Amino acid sequence: MKNNVSNGAGSTTPDRGHVAFVGAGPGAADLLTIQAARAIENAEVVIHDRLVSEDILALASDAARMVDVGKTGFGPSTPQAQIDALIVAYAQAGARVVRLKGGDATVFGRLDEEIEALDAAQVEWSVLPGITAASASVAAIGQSLTRRGRNASVRLLTGHDMNGYADHDWSVLARPGEVAAIYMGKKSARFIQGRLIMHGADRTTPITIVENASLPTQRILSSTLNTLTADLDAARMTGPALMLYGLAPRAAQSALTQIQKQELA
Amino acid sequence: MKNNVSNGAGSTTPDRGHVAFVGAGPGAADLLTIQAARAIENAEVVIHDRLVSEDILALASDAARMVDVGKTGFGPSTPQAQIDALIVAYAQAGARVVRLKGGDATVFGRLDEEIEALDAAQVEWSVLPGITAASASVAAIGQSLTRRGRNASVRLLTGHDMNGYADHDWSVLARPGEVAAIYMGKKSARFIQGRLIMHGADRTTPITIVENASLPTQRILSSTLNTLTADLDAARMTGPALMLYGLAPRAAQSALTQIQKQELA
Repeated sequence: MKNNVSNGAGSTTPDRGHVAFVGAGPGAADLLTIQAARAIENAEVVIHDRLVSEDILALASDAARMVDVGKTGFGPSTPQAQIDALIVAYAQAGARVVRLKGGDATVFGRLDEEIEALDAAQVEWSVLPGITAASASVAAIGQSLTRRGRNASVRLLTGHDMNGYADHDWSVLARPGEVAAIYMGKKSARFIQGRLIMHGADRTTPITIVENASLPTQRILSSTLNTLTADLDAARMTGPALMLYGLAPRAAQSALTQIQKQELA
Repeated sequence: MKNNVSNGAGSTTPDRGHVAFVGAGPGAADLLTIQAARAIENAEVVIHDRLVSEDILALASDAARMVDVGKTGFGPSTPQAQIDALIVAYAQAGARVVRLKGGDATVFGRLDEEIEALDAAQVEWSVLPGITAASASVAAIGQSLTRRGRNASVRLLTGHDMNGYADHDWSVLARPGEVAAIYMGKKSARFIQGRLIMHGADRTTPITIVENASLPTQRILSSTLNTLTADLDAARMTGPALMLYGLAPRAAQSALTQIQKQELA
């Protein structure tokens, strides 16, 4: 085997606990992977974000310690350091820990900080992928993130980092046919709208907002770049939402309720 | 409910069959979602690509008709139209059809052509998301697709469309800290390398190639922009591979075998 070829990744210190970073998917329990569901079932400690649904948390053993790190008790100034310390402490006590994150832990999940804390403490870990909100949202509107002849690439962005997004990024995104999935973009909607229009984007570009993707409370808002902020104001969305820039719900579709979809699956 | 708000998507013609487009994930059967596994188990017809693993196909009922559309028998000139016609035909005969695609059907999966064929035939369908290769590959090297302070966005690209990729896209990708997951990029490696260097990318930019992500045969090649083509030639990868541009395997990791990873999960 060549020196730069390996067959996997993780850290190995077999005499201590272990942390599995598990992607919980967008919300519905049946959008967990089989691997993720097993890891939750077998965990001794589950450290989870606020957004992970009750149905998913219910998979854990009755004996498992459930730790919610999304609620108060972890101050707003240094929450990440406290979460890091907590994960390390449970693992060093020898526990089989699941660190459960919404969506996919590798997409806007602050995974690196937690892994680095574990590496510094020489604690073993692994990463179990999950369905990211972009996949679930685009499936809900019957579209693809990429399409031959329309977009050769798709960008995943976060509204949180929009201020650090360079002007040439906006100009690329403003071109016809571009598609992007914008995470946590609701609060940045006015900023995004302004930048894209400033960089020449077509004001009729479709934008679809999917709230509570995959859950019974899922709502789909069909909008355009021009009407985005007004449509968002009118829809009064309070749940987590993903913006699909450049995509409209497929026209030939009529609404299917979540119950019908489950029956079909 | 506002006119532009709905709660889901799909087409409804209840007296006919139904097609579920199911993302099979990167390969390992336990990276199927629970929803996807159920759909396969309940399918009367499974129309699958060549890359879907035997372990996943084995989930189907003994009574199910298995149709491999990735092998010979479907000519190289018009395979997509024949696949479309086949899916429509089974559904119109009243069958519960699963159209099983590797990874996530909405990412470089040619989903739109098949949905449009079903819509034209007024056949009911739904889309079940899957783990895309980028998620599984980045999890295997213990990195994130996005990271605060490094990259505010990540791009999913396909090597197939690189000739249509505009020069300003390359110049954005060539900047420090950019991260992209390049699907089917092995054959385009020399072209990608040349373009990125021409647009000023740092020759030491890490590139990791993950072959057969999630399978026991998984291999990880740690390379750089400068040595990409030589390293790929030396590694002689024959399985499906994803290129992670801008990411190296996490340094603190030592190799974990797939068996160890399964035990940990």
